[in-house]
Amino acid sequence: MFILSSPSGAGKTTIARKLLEVDGGLDLSVSVTTRPMRPGEVDGRDYYFTDRASFTRMEAAGAFLEWAEVFGNCYATPHAHITEGLAQGRDFLFDIDWQGAQQLRTRMGPDVVSVFLLPPDIATLETRLRGRGTDGEAVINGRMARARAEISHWDAYDYVVVNDDIDGCFATVRTVLQAERLRRTRQIGLSDFTARLMR
Amino acid sequence: MFILSSPSGAGKTTIARKLLEVDGGLDLSVSVTTRPMRPGEVDGRDYYFTDRASFTRMEAAGAFLEWAEVFGNCYATPHAHITEGLAQGRDFLFDIDWQGAQQLRTRMGPDVVSVFLLPPDIATLETRLRGRGTDGEAVINGRMARARAEISHWDAYDYVVVNDDIDGCFATVRTVLQAERLRRTRQIGLSDFTARLMR
Repeated sequence: MFILSSPSGAGKTTIARKLLEVDGGLDLSVSVTTRPMRPGEVDGRDYYFTDRASFTRMEAAGAFLEWAEVFGNCYATPHAHITEGLAQGRDFLFDIDWQGAQQLRTRMGPDVVSVFLLPPDIATLETRLRGRGTDGEAVINGRMARARAEISHWDAYDYVVVNDDIDGCFATVRTVLQAERLRRTRQIGLSDFTARLMR
Repeated sequence: MFILSSPSGAGKTTIARKLLEVDGGLDLSVSVTTRPMRPGEVDGRDYYFTDRASFTRMEAAGAFLEWAEVFGNCYATPHAHITEGLAQGRDFLFDIDWQGAQQLRTRMGPDVVSVFLLPPDIATLETRLRGRGTDGEAVINGRMARARAEISHWDAYDYVVVNDDIDGCFATVRTVLQAERLRRTRQIGLSDFTARLMR
């Protein structure tokens, strides 16, 4: 389980998309959400869109690995798909915020690797948040406040990568993913392999 | 502190040399030994060569981070050079066996990363051990027994890499080194950096 978190505007979505493109062993964990679908989004690809009543039922039935409420909308990671995939040796990418990351770490333990992306400076972050278009100052200020709040949780992550260049950042995050797969505890069959070497 | 261990003949020395060549932040930890100097070796580069009496005095004076006796010869990592270098932000490569690795982990804790190289199969290992030249069966058998004993400690290492191709193995070990440097706990100045972002 490979968590990628960042304040909004630090490039997380781009990095996640590139990782999924090049890495055949990695699947995206698609979250369930109660927030309305935005133009261009696809149900089942970007999120599983649902209503609050269904969300609450699923939560009560233990269907979620983690869930969080952000600005009045609920987000959750559905359980079944992930645990089945992990058992088959698949890896999963989680594009989630600090609350989700914290729950996933608590619940799933040392099999979780978490990476936090930071913008190179606050001006870059603000430019990126403004650059999206047509929003007013109040909306921008709200986003900046939320970004600062997200950044304040940097010290719960295993790895921190500063995104001052999207290609360099991508290569770096990929390095972390590749290295973590080489951990002894994550390699299947090593015990048999070494037993054969010692025969 | 980056430990590279392997059974003799699994390519550790070649990988270590290549890492030191390309990585400007990495120094070799040069061990002290009581074994005789071999042709081509240089005192202070390959080892610090010393006699048993001096070795015992240094050990008693707490000059070593770890030490071990192998086939009647003593090997140790001198303390001062390493701790000074670490304080200046240098990284050190340790080309040591499982006994040294175990002591270094116990003594230095989570700042130690250990990688164990394995041969792709036992026939390749035997070929490499024979390939060195002119030794008799008894010597070869002794080396094979020692290699098996070393392999039996594979499960104490953080990472395990199978060396079936020297360039691929080198790239893989380098990936581990680069990723470990990105750990939050190893990055100096992150706390100040994030504080500036949140101002």
